[in-house]
Amino acid sequence: MKNHFEFDVLGLVHSPFKEKFGIPRQPGLVPEIRATLELLSPYDRPEAVSGLEGYSHIWVQFVFHQTYGDQWQPTVRPPRLGGNRRVGVFASRSPFRPNPIGLSVVKLDEVRCSASGVELAISGVDMVDGTPVLDIKPYIPYVDSLSDALSGYAPVPPEQILEVHISLLAEQQLDGRPDSAVLRTLIRSLLATDPRPAYVGGSQPDRIYGIRLYDFDLRWRVEGTRAEVVELAPVETASP
Amino acid sequence: MKNHFEFDVLGLVHSPFKEKFGIPRQPGLVPEIRATLELLSPYDRPEAVSGLEGYSHIWVQFVFHQTYGDQWQPTVRPPRLGGNRRVGVFASRSPFRPNPIGLSVVKLDEVRCSASGVELAISGVDMVDGTPVLDIKPYIPYVDSLSDALSGYAPVPPEQILEVHISLLAEQQLDGRPDSAVLRTLIRSLLATDPRPAYVGGSQPDRIYGIRLYDFDLRWRVEGTRAEVVELAPVETASP
Repeated sequence: MKNHFEFDVLGLVHSPFKEKFGIPRQPGLVPEIRATLELLSPYDRPEAVSGLEGYSHIWVQFVFHQTYGDQWQPTVRPPRLGGNRRVGVFASRSPFRPNPIGLSVVKLDEVRCSASGVELAISGVDMVDGTPVLDIKPYIPYVDSLSDALSGYAPVPPEQILEVHISLLAEQQLDGRPDSAVLRTLIRSLLATDPRPAYVGGSQPDRIYGIRLYDFDLRWRVEGTRAEVVELAPVETASP
Repeated sequence: MKNHFEFDVLGLVHSPFKEKFGIPRQPGLVPEIRATLELLSPYDRPEAVSGLEGYSHIWVQFVFHQTYGDQWQPTVRPPRLGGNRRVGVFASRSPFRPNPIGLSVVKLDEVRCSASGVELAISGVDMVDGTPVLDIKPYIPYVDSLSDALSGYAPVPPEQILEVHISLLAEQQLDGRPDSAVLRTLIRSLLATDPRPAYVGGSQPDRIYGIRLYDFDLRWRVEGTRAEVVELAPVETASP
């Protein structure tokens, strides 16, 4: 009997998130996050996605490539439990798992087939830019949607716990961009859920956090229940 | 950039289905189908499933090992379309796919930890006996359950289209088994959905179909909308 299996990378996710920090902890939490899923050769054939346009959502099975090869631990500390209670890795959706395979349902906005290949426009993603895709499947509600399933430690969505303010500087920077309206909504949704690590204790109003988003570094801080966007700092393209 | 990834087999599904034919086409269609998921060493640690007992359902990501290594085709013929219309492989849940990774939500009946290892009692499975498991994740309704998602060609569950009768011989054989009550319900549910291949045209009342289930071969035939269980034929243990 085989004790391991090898799979090809069929596609890549191009997402606004350039690093792991700040990414919503589940798909769908920030619907404004748009991304594309590019099929790679030889899988980029229009026939292979024929009929997919009839579905509003798809499953993306992908590799947590940033944790691939890491040593696994039998327990993890989910952020929803404040980061200090441990649960079994198989009772979590943590990226730190024996086989780092991710599973996310995302909204399918458009199927684009052209001479240059096949691309799916998706939204509500929780994947970092460059995520390798192993499979795409239609979301079939009568099979996949179990609204009365019982959920352990995370029965309800995280609350919008922070009130988000945008500084005058950041407002001016947003105004100068073609995607300002969508970006403003995205930033507000993203910060409202408080993406700071769960183990941050107490208020550290002087601490500035950074989330690498698109071509900038979103710089923000928190005082009490108020998040303030400080600025959209440019990122050198040659940075790691 | 890596263009393929390797994953370990973490566990095995022990299911009543000894071969592919007759297996429900989606999980949950026949809730009576009970199976166990055995974690393999070094993944069979009780801590790794701690907290999982709080969930009613789990995702099982597994390998369609019987089609692993087969040549993939960009389109498939789903049974729900009568087996003669083609759709893109990524618009299907077919086991014949570029990366034959399966995804099924199943009911978690019990988490059993003992000196001999860790085993999950699951039901509603659509997996063949010996299926290699790549990952186990909790089903989280607020993330995974999208009851208003739009579905392409398979918007509703398949109907119970056949009326199931059990022959006198089969009734006697069932009566002689300790699991007769559960087995009777399972057989009725299984045959009611008409597991014959979609391309079977017209009525062939003389044809006897066989489904290898547990330690027997379930032999049945169809006349019109009536399925008849002929017998539970013994299977030689040395058969392939």
